[in-house]
Amino acid sequence: MPSPESLVYFDHAATTPVHAQVLEAMLPYFSRSYANPNSIYRFAQEARKAVDDARCTIADVLNCRPNEVIFTSGGTESINAALRGAAFASMRAGVGNHIVTTQVEHHAVLHTCQMLENLGFDVSYVPVDRYGMVDPADIEGALTEKTVLISVMLANNEIGTIEPVAEIAHLLRRRDASGRRRSILFHTDAVQAAGALDLDVKRLDVDLLSLSSHKFYGPKGSGVLYIRRGTPFNAQITGGGQERNRRSGTENVPGIVGTAVALRRAEEHRAANSAYCRHLRDRLIRGVLSTIPGSHLTGHPERRLPNNASFVFDGVEGESILLGLDFQGVAASSGSACSSGSLEPSHVLLATGLTAAAASGALRFSLGPDNTEQEVDYVLSVLPDIVQQLRSMSGPRATA
Amino acid sequence: MPSPESLVYFDHAATTPVHAQVLEAMLPYFSRSYANPNSIYRFAQEARKAVDDARCTIADVLNCRPNEVIFTSGGTESINAALRGAAFASMRAGVGNHIVTTQVEHHAVLHTCQMLENLGFDVSYVPVDRYGMVDPADIEGALTEKTVLISVMLANNEIGTIEPVAEIAHLLRRRDASGRRRSILFHTDAVQAAGALDLDVKRLDVDLLSLSSHKFYGPKGSGVLYIRRGTPFNAQITGGGQERNRRSGTENVPGIVGTAVALRRAEEHRAANSAYCRHLRDRLIRGVLSTIPGSHLTGHPERRLPNNASFVFDGVEGESILLGLDFQGVAASSGSACSSGSLEPSHVLLATGLTAAAASGALRFSLGPDNTEQEVDYVLSVLPDIVQQLRSMSGPRATA
Repeated sequence: MPSPESLVYFDHAATTPVHAQVLEAMLPYFSRSYANPNSIYRFAQEARKAVDDARCTIADVLNCRPNEVIFTSGGTESINAALRGAAFASMRAGVGNHIVTTQVEHHAVLHTCQMLENLGFDVSYVPVDRYGMVDPADIEGALTEKTVLISVMLANNEIGTIEPVAEIAHLLRRRDASGRRRSILFHTDAVQAAGALDLDVKRLDVDLLSLSSHKFYGPKGSGVLYIRRGTPFNAQITGGGQERNRRSGTENVPGIVGTAVALRRAEEHRAANSAYCRHLRDRLIRGVLSTIPGSHLTGHPERRLPNNASFVFDGVEGESILLGLDFQGVAASSGSACSSGSLEPSHVLLATGLTAAAASGALRFSLGPDNTEQEVDYVLSVLPDIVQQLRSMSGPRATA
Repeated sequence: MPSPESLVYFDHAATTPVHAQVLEAMLPYFSRSYANPNSIYRFAQEARKAVDDARCTIADVLNCRPNEVIFTSGGTESINAALRGAAFASMRAGVGNHIVTTQVEHHAVLHTCQMLENLGFDVSYVPVDRYGMVDPADIEGALTEKTVLISVMLANNEIGTIEPVAEIAHLLRRRDASGRRRSILFHTDAVQAAGALDLDVKRLDVDLLSLSSHKFYGPKGSGVLYIRRGTPFNAQITGGGQERNRRSGTENVPGIVGTAVALRRAEEHRAANSAYCRHLRDRLIRGVLSTIPGSHLTGHPERRLPNNASFVFDGVEGESILLGLDFQGVAASSGSACSSGSLEPSHVLLATGLTAAAASGALRFSLGPDNTEQEVDYVLSVLPDIVQQLRSMSGPRATA
């Protein structure tokens, strides 16, 4: 097994290591300042202050109030809380039962929408173009008098396409101003965007925004949900009343501290890391497309995450390429890590108009600031042979 | 502020420090074996194996199958998932909409039951005796043809009373055998019991059992839910399909590893730690009752957690005692940490028949194996004066 040192890790969209500074910040809260932050004695004030400070740091990055930030156990919980919490609150208030989302959302959105359909909601899954991008006009066209919630991801986890979230929000704002109907809540899954895109909730103009710490060098098991003040919201985890009654449970103090340090770092290094990753990404994309016949970039050619290089290869299974790359010490993905092992073709690629057969040749590289040109060149040196070999295996000989 | 070294920490029911062996086991999974366990390359197999091994360890302690164990973000999420997941699944199957619980459950149970009432469930809150113990016959008496779920805690977090969970399960089993009606699901909140009581789910004969890692020297933000095979259950967090579709979200690998090591340790040292804590507890109880007039033990005199010494003091506020103890370097609680700062009297003490005035004088000490006789004697040396002083302040002079 390759050690992390020799491994070429090109799967940063699946997860990232906890950064040394992040872990260092977390360590005091495991066994030293371990108090329950809800206790009233002075020893617990260290833990309480750590949580409060972390909340302020997050709020600063998101450009919101600290009490609009709640801590969760990760991106999936944040997304579930956003969708279920806003949908149930709106339905109970009699506002409506219609939700609008896109066909290329993460399963955390899509499967939660399907669950809400089982409970009486109607959901419109808006199609996307060949690059995986939704047209704001199509979102507007899907709205009905009963629409209570829209959920559109900030950037796609598989193909890296950046969705027009602020444009959709602008459109909603115009509708509100025209008095045509009451406000519709707007959630964005920003899980893949942290560290790459601006997370300013005022500029994005969203009501709810979800983050997952382990995607930006923070710890697994920690996430953030921004809930704009005044947003109807039913808590999905009830109990001791933590997080101002929006998410009960003893606070994961080390995880919260680590999340704040990681998000602060991600924001501070965003411009430099993005430029660096974009450089590596473009070198990788150019190299693949120019050296491997029958290779195609998936996702938007320009409007894409700086670290995402995703492809389909004609006549070869993405999973087989992955195994070949693994054998050469390269970690990549055929789509999202969550659906690894699933034999179903990517719903994202199908939504872009690819056939199931074409979609099965999917491969995603996702880069990080710890990657190097040498690693890109190494991958470019091994990938063509892997693809070539697989094609020759599945060619005439395989059917002979 | 007292440092943890000089602090007398008598609040182990609120939280415990992460044990050194637990933290050591967790550390490799933050920044070294950091892969997403759902990825298919070999590097991810380290993380996958760590999660699988942890699940086996938990299953071994609980005496169940590994696939009956799911990992959550803590006790509150486990309890919410158990109640919501079983209740919704049963309601949708048309089995019924009635839930039976007790008046002394943690707020994670009670507030979730209230939420379920808002959604159309009927909930019976069965009373308890003066020791906080529920009578199995009263649980049976509350059952109706529509009952789908019973939730009774294994041990009370405030007063330490151990509830007759196995007896209630036995009674349900008898009813099933008599064919009077279909099985009713049985959940127990074992959050306070880990490390003190037997968690064998076969002997307890429960369908669902909730644990919180930070109560047994594991990390905050991690918990366990046992779901007996075949139990109707709707996932409360949906997405990538992790935990066999019962709890989506990238696994918190370090938290899961830490949970397993902590639970294994808790079980291995359970007999010795319980005996030691019982010794300290009884010394503390004897000392308080014999030196402080107007002091009363709350909870059951014998059938109580080995580490719980809880009292009410006549004519004095528990919160004021806490502040006095804090000033002397002693960390304790007036009830549960979750409701700290709440001015409402403990629902648990009210359920035992105390008046709101009497309940306001509540103080809980919860001990750990790291505590010493010297610490008990130190608390016994400062507490009488604190109580005496507070009483004299709130006495004639205060009303003069």
